[in-house]
Amino acid sequence: MDYLKHTVENIEAIQPDPKGRIKAKFDTLAIPRGSLGRLEDLATIYYSIRGNLSCGIKHKKIFTLAGDHGVVAEGVSSFPQQVTCQMVQNFIHEGAAINVLARHIGAKVIVVDCGVAAEITPSKGLKIKKLNHGTNNMASGPAMSGEDAVKSIETGIELIEDELRDGLDIVGLGDMGIANTTPSSAIFSILGNVPVSVATGRGTGLNDDELQKKISVIEKAIAINRPDPNDPIDVLAKVGGYEIGGIAGLCLGAARHRIPIVLDGFISTAGAIIACALEPKVVNYLIASHVSAERGHKHMLTFLGKEPLFNLNMRLGEGTGATLGIHLVEAGVKLLNEMATFQDAKVSDPYA
Amino acid sequence: MDYLKHTVENIEAIQPDPKGRIKAKFDTLAIPRGSLGRLEDLATIYYSIRGNLSCGIKHKKIFTLAGDHGVVAEGVSSFPQQVTCQMVQNFIHEGAAINVLARHIGAKVIVVDCGVAAEITPSKGLKIKKLNHGTNNMASGPAMSGEDAVKSIETGIELIEDELRDGLDIVGLGDMGIANTTPSSAIFSILGNVPVSVATGRGTGLNDDELQKKISVIEKAIAINRPDPNDPIDVLAKVGGYEIGGIAGLCLGAARHRIPIVLDGFISTAGAIIACALEPKVVNYLIASHVSAERGHKHMLTFLGKEPLFNLNMRLGEGTGATLGIHLVEAGVKLLNEMATFQDAKVSDPYA
Repeated sequence: MDYLKHTVENIEAIQPDPKGRIKAKFDTLAIPRGSLGRLEDLATIYYSIRGNLSCGIKHKKIFTLAGDHGVVAEGVSSFPQQVTCQMVQNFIHEGAAINVLARHIGAKVIVVDCGVAAEITPSKGLKIKKLNHGTNNMASGPAMSGEDAVKSIETGIELIEDELRDGLDIVGLGDMGIANTTPSSAIFSILGNVPVSVATGRGTGLNDDELQKKISVIEKAIAINRPDPNDPIDVLAKVGGYEIGGIAGLCLGAARHRIPIVLDGFISTAGAIIACALEPKVVNYLIASHVSAERGHKHMLTFLGKEPLFNLNMRLGEGTGATLGIHLVEAGVKLLNEMATFQDAKVSDPYA
Repeated sequence: MDYLKHTVENIEAIQPDPKGRIKAKFDTLAIPRGSLGRLEDLATIYYSIRGNLSCGIKHKKIFTLAGDHGVVAEGVSSFPQQVTCQMVQNFIHEGAAINVLARHIGAKVIVVDCGVAAEITPSKGLKIKKLNHGTNNMASGPAMSGEDAVKSIETGIELIEDELRDGLDIVGLGDMGIANTTPSSAIFSILGNVPVSVATGRGTGLNDDELQKKISVIEKAIAINRPDPNDPIDVLAKVGGYEIGGIAGLCLGAARHRIPIVLDGFISTAGAIIACALEPKVVNYLIASHVSAERGHKHMLTFLGKEPLFNLNMRLGEGTGATLGIHLVEAGVKLLNEMATFQDAKVSDPYA
């Protein structure tokens, strides 16, 4: 708890371009002012967070955190629980979508077992930070203890601090966990104060009846556990998950070290919402990438005051949307750093 | 004219995934079906055009075609005409936004003088295909002769066929030409049958009065020249531009060789509209990237039946939006080719 407290207390408030230096630099570049649109905004956000106009983006890391969920027993997913462990193996063997997209943008994937319901053989491509073999079924009691909720968040902070040693310029959030849209919907319903029906979608592909059942399961879990909406740790413990706590910790750890954080889809945003509930300053460290096809994600982004960069109708998780968002942030940063000015390029400056 | 005619006659009709082989391959991959959204669609379009499921994307080329416009004399741009030539130099020295973004995605930029109003010293990074020193002022007569309109299109076809020799897997369209939103608006107004006021925007940053003046200039040009809406060559000659004709030729040449074409913003889409008017089959070879902030671009995309991939409020041209679109097409193609199947990854297949 001290580690979490210390981290939260050391998160600084961010103002966009406080001295106007980033805008001033853009204004020298040989383009019509503002014509690079949101790519300029992304460079501005990036450097406002870093606080240092001389650093570029070298070390891009996607953190794909895996955990299982006892609530799978209620039939809330089209996929069986063992797929979580199988997909972790797929990540390690670099055959998953996140591996392909991370290679495509030149990023590293950090795969972490935060609470998979199986023993996974240790290997080079996997960090084992397992707190338990999956959560308990939140439809019949708390998903985890309050102590484990804190530990799961601290795991995320620790992951950031470990990776800082080799270099870390931007963080992409990612997740894997069969049934994990269910706790994510519950978290958003409580912390975002929205009806469960608005916060809940079809996940990997439920039909209408299955969706209704999922909504009932979440309503039951909330009724039984009565999570305190003013206590994000209590919400995480009662209706959350180990990887979701880990993602909240990634956000807190990255913010504490002034590293920009790129959201992925529904689950990663649920983790970010917990982090923002713990420390509202975190919100200015977050960059939305896509809006997921999962119902409720657009409401989450609105709740955080974020406009997504694109909508490609994706709903996979793993960090896949985050990779494409990171590529756009990097585009903005490179434009700011590598473009010639009106003066350098000897282009007539109509603003001079 | 024979070259143009021969090219148009050899463009094949494209059906999306005619044998269902691409969908069948996606269905084997270890993800919930359809969860990669439009990235799957992009891979499908790419391979439907190529007609060969074994080719990847290796040679990405952005064609940035430059030309000047006599109509600049009417005060339709915030920038002076010499900026076209200055920006071509900037492209050659790799200091422009398009150079930065092309490097970012690993693409080559082909810079072409199609009709800049200045002699540009020949250099390695520039193809000189100049038809004239800028067009004539369309507000007082035809922008160019019908013969030059055909030649400008044939230049674009030739550029594609030149580049095919070194390899060409995907084409990004790009443009540079002070005042070139003015002919583009005129072209769209005529071929798209929309009012000039709907087709005309602020370009590099006109104020309200300047925008009204630009609309009047375009209306005057159309009234004086009376371009035939059923004859795209006549439209190009009367109110077009050399680089816009070149872009139409790029579309025809690429379609003729079954190479996918990624649109950029307003000017490139005007060129594509001419190509589609010459041969409607071309439309299925076009992939929209962004929707530009230039008023009218969204109407152009609707006219072509295209949904943009993203809206980043960009309005620079040069091919900048196309680069980011190409990166997404490549993401879809790599996902299809590099992801493990349910079987390979030993992931339980709920669809089996």
